[in-house]
Amino acid sequence: MLLSNLVINKDEPIYIQIKRYISNMILKGLIPNNSKLPSTRELSQVLNVSRNSVTLAYEELKADGLIYSVSGKGTFTKSNSSLNQSNWCINWEDKQNSYSKVANDMDIIKNEIPWENNLISFKSISPNGDMFDIDELKKSFLNRLSLEGHKLLNYGYAKGYKPLIEYLLEYMSKKGVDTYNKDILITNGFTEGLDIILSSFTSSGDYIICENPTHNTSIKIMKALGLKLIGIDINENGLDFDLLEVKLEKYKDKIKFAYITPSYHNPTGTVMSPENRYKFYNLMKNNNIPIIEDGFNEELLYSSSHIFPICSLDNLSNGIIYIGSFSKILFPGMRIGWILADKNAISKLESVKRCRNIHVSFLDQGILYDYLQNGAFEKYIKKVRKFYGDKFNFAYKCVEKYIPNEYIFGDGGLHLFLKLKNIDTRELLNKCYEKGVIFMPGDIFYINNEVNNTLRLGFSRLSFEEIEKGIKIIGETIKELPIKD
Amino acid sequence: MLLSNLVINKDEPIYIQIKRYISNMILKGLIPNNSKLPSTRELSQVLNVSRNSVTLAYEELKADGLIYSVSGKGTFTKSNSSLNQSNWCINWEDKQNSYSKVANDMDIIKNEIPWENNLISFKSISPNGDMFDIDELKKSFLNRLSLEGHKLLNYGYAKGYKPLIEYLLEYMSKKGVDTYNKDILITNGFTEGLDIILSSFTSSGDYIICENPTHNTSIKIMKALGLKLIGIDINENGLDFDLLEVKLEKYKDKIKFAYITPSYHNPTGTVMSPENRYKFYNLMKNNNIPIIEDGFNEELLYSSSHIFPICSLDNLSNGIIYIGSFSKILFPGMRIGWILADKNAISKLESVKRCRNIHVSFLDQGILYDYLQNGAFEKYIKKVRKFYGDKFNFAYKCVEKYIPNEYIFGDGGLHLFLKLKNIDTRELLNKCYEKGVIFMPGDIFYINNEVNNTLRLGFSRLSFEEIEKGIKIIGETIKELPIKD
Repeated sequence: MLLSNLVINKDEPIYIQIKRYISNMILKGLIPNNSKLPSTRELSQVLNVSRNSVTLAYEELKADGLIYSVSGKGTFTKSNSSLNQSNWCINWEDKQNSYSKVANDMDIIKNEIPWENNLISFKSISPNGDMFDIDELKKSFLNRLSLEGHKLLNYGYAKGYKPLIEYLLEYMSKKGVDTYNKDILITNGFTEGLDIILSSFTSSGDYIICENPTHNTSIKIMKALGLKLIGIDINENGLDFDLLEVKLEKYKDKIKFAYITPSYHNPTGTVMSPENRYKFYNLMKNNNIPIIEDGFNEELLYSSSHIFPICSLDNLSNGIIYIGSFSKILFPGMRIGWILADKNAISKLESVKRCRNIHVSFLDQGILYDYLQNGAFEKYIKKVRKFYGDKFNFAYKCVEKYIPNEYIFGDGGLHLFLKLKNIDTRELLNKCYEKGVIFMPGDIFYINNEVNNTLRLGFSRLSFEEIEKGIKIIGETIKELPIKD
Repeated sequence: MLLSNLVINKDEPIYIQIKRYISNMILKGLIPNNSKLPSTRELSQVLNVSRNSVTLAYEELKADGLIYSVSGKGTFTKSNSSLNQSNWCINWEDKQNSYSKVANDMDIIKNEIPWENNLISFKSISPNGDMFDIDELKKSFLNRLSLEGHKLLNYGYAKGYKPLIEYLLEYMSKKGVDTYNKDILITNGFTEGLDIILSSFTSSGDYIICENPTHNTSIKIMKALGLKLIGIDINENGLDFDLLEVKLEKYKDKIKFAYITPSYHNPTGTVMSPENRYKFYNLMKNNNIPIIEDGFNEELLYSSSHIFPICSLDNLSNGIIYIGSFSKILFPGMRIGWILADKNAISKLESVKRCRNIHVSFLDQGILYDYLQNGAFEKYIKKVRKFYGDKFNFAYKCVEKYIPNEYIFGDGGLHLFLKLKNIDTRELLNKCYEKGVIFMPGDIFYINNEVNNTLRLGFSRLSFEEIEKGIKIIGETIKELPIKD
C-alpha cells in the first residue's frame, strides 16, 4: 500500500512525521496529482498508530492545500505542478480492431433480452444445476487433492492433466474411435477448442463450410477470425447434400475446413443419420477438406438410434479434428473440453494453447478426472438422460398442442427448434416478453441472420408447469400476430 | 458405444443375432472399413449377454472375412468396398498459419533442456508448492461450495465472479489506484490477459514499445500477433530513457502500446524507481501511447522501497491497462489473473473473452475469492516473503562468491539475472548440463535473441544446499570455458 513504508520514530509527534512524509512525497512529485490516499482508518492500521494522528496529519495537509477530500470518494493529493493537471483520455471504442468489433457486435449477452427473475425463459440451454451431484464433486476434490497435493496447484502441462487425457482417449475409443496416432489437448471448453483450431490452421479470408443454421458462438468465432462461411441448409430432410455438392464444385480449392455438429445439432436438435455421416465423411475426404466435428451433447443420447461420431470413420486417417465437452451437461462453470486429433496437429495446438493461457486449471482437471473415473459421471448421465428426456418429450407435446408451426426440429437434447408459418419471431419475442416469456430468436443461428421465422426453445432449467405455461403463452401470442406473406 | 442399440430377442441363438447385426452394418457401409469393434468383454457387458456369445459371433464374422483382429490393438471391420480403402493423410505441419508457427517456434518447453529428476534446475521461477497451505484451500472450497452450491458449477459471467471482482477493485484501491470509471476482467492468468488486450486493440504490423530484455512469453505473444517490437534496453542504471526518447521521435505515430514490468521485472528482477515510474508515465502520456503495465510479482515486496504501480499515477485518466496475477506466487495451476482498465476498455475485452472461452472457471474463482477474503492469502504472503527473501539473499551471496560476473541484476523476486564477462551462456549451459545443473539462458528474453552472455537463475524450488552447490558448479564451469573477446 501507498505510504506503508513510512517508519515512525519515537522522538516526534506522530502526526508531524506523517504530514512531513506525505508532503515531501507530493512536493517531490513522487505522488502525482489526484492520487487517492488511504483512508485515515486504513493508514492508521498499516502504520499501527492511532487514527487521531492520521486525521490530524490529513487536516494540516488540507490546510496547506496539498490534499483535498471528495465526499464519498476519499482523499486525494493536489500538487501545484502543472505537468499532471490535464486528463489523458483515450477512446477505447475507437482503438478496437475488427476482431474485437465482431466479438462485441455478435455478443448475444449484450444484445439479447437478459434473463430476469420473473420471466419464463426458454433462452438457455445450460444444464439444470439442481441435478449436479455436489457431494460427489466434494469427494473428488478431497480425494484428488489428498492424492496429488500441491502438484494440482502449481504449473502443469499445456496439453492437460495426463490421467484425464488417458481417460478421454479410452472414452473416445469406446465410441469406436481408434486412438492410435491420435492425441488429446484439454481446452477451456468447446469454445476455446474451436477458436484454437481455427486460430492455428486458418487465415482471414479462408472459406469454411458449415451447417446453416448452426451454433451462434461458432459463427461468431469464425466471423471474428475473418473466415468466409459457406452455409449448407438444414431442412426437414437434414443436410442439403445437393447444395453441398454445388458449393464444393464452386469453392473447392479455397475451402480450409468443414465444421459440423452431427448429434443434437444446435439449434435444430437433429441427429445426422449414420448413412449421412458416412456420405459426408467421404465427400470431404474425396475433396481433401478436413472436418472439425463438434461432439456437442453427444453424451445425451435419449433415442434408440445407433450413433457413432464421424471421427470413428477416420480411424486409419487423420482428416478429422473432434471437439468434445462434457460441460454442456456437467459443470459448465469449470470450462473443460478437449480436442482429439492427429498427434502432429495436437502438438501444434498445444503450443498455441500455451501461448494463449498456459493450460486449463489443473485443479479442475484433477477434480473432473476423479469424478469421471470413480463412476460418478456414469451415474449422473443415467439420471439426466431420463430427466431431460422426459422434459424433451413433454415440451414436444406442448408445442404440438399449443403452437401452430410449419415444422418442429429436434431429435433430443436440451432444446427444440421451431419453424413458424409466416411469423417474424423478433416481433413475437417482443410481444411474449410483455407477457413474461422469452426464447431465443432463430435468426442468430443463421450465418447472415437471413431467416426470421424460427425460434429455439431451451427447457433444461424449467419445470413441467413452466414449460406448459410458457409454450401456451407463445402459442396464444402467435395467434394475435398479423400473418405475413 | 458402437453397437449398444442392438436389441436381443429370445427366439434365436444370441451369437447369430450379433453376427447378423454386425454383418448387416458392415455390408450396408454403416460401419466403415477398419473401424474398431468393442472387445468381446465390453460388448457382452453392454448387451448383457454372455461373453461366449460375442466370441462366437466374432469367430464367425472372421471366418466370413468381415472382421479381423490385430494383436494388442483389437478387432476391426474389413468390408470389401473400395470407397474407404485409401488412407486420408493431411500434413498438419504445413496447414499451420504464421501465428501457430511463431507460437511453436518460440515454445521454450519444446526447445529448451527439460527438467529431469537428477538435475539442479535454476530454470523455473514457479513458486514452491510446499509453501501452499492446502488446508486453507480445502476450507475455502468447502465453504464457498456450501454457500453458493451449484451456481459455482454452472455458466457464469465472462467478466468474472462478482465478489472476486469487487475484492480486487478494493485490493487495487489499497495500492493507491482510484477505481472510479475502472473495471476488472478476470482472465486465465497474466498470459491470457496480455493476449486478449493485444488481440483486441492491435493489428499485425503495429509497433509496440517494450523493455529489452523482457518476459519471453510476452515476446512470444507479441510476435505471434505480428507486432513489431521496439526494445528499450535495461542496463545497470535501469531503463535507457535516452534511447526511449530517440525511438519515440522516430516511430511516434506508429506505436500502439508500451508494455512494461516495473516491479521485479522478468528477467532482470529490477524494480523501477518511483521517479522513473513518474517519468515514464508522463512520457507516454505526452505522446499519447497507452501503457500495458505488467504487475508481475508486485506482491512480493521484500525491500523497503516505497512502491506504487504506475497505474496509480493515472487516477483521473484512462491511459493504463494493468494486468495483475497472484498466480506467480500462489496456485498457478488455477490460472487466475485480472485486467484493470477503463470501464469501456473492459467492456470490449469482456466480449473478446466470451468469444475466446466464455469465462474463467467459476469454481476456481470462488475458491480463490474465499481464500483471499478470509485472510489466508495475507498469512501466506507474510510467510513466503520471508521464505523467498532469505533464498534471494543467499543466492545473491553465492553468486558473488562463486560466479565471476560483470553485473548481478535483481532487487528481489524469485530469480537473479547475471551478465557474464565474454561468456556464451549457451555453451556454458551445455557444459553445466553435463555436470547436472541447468539454468535459463538469457537470450530468450531479448527480442532478437541478440545478447548471449546473460542467464537467469530461478531459485524458488531449490534448497539452500542445492542453490550453493549449483551456483558453485556454474562458477567452476565458467572458469573452464575459453574466454572470448
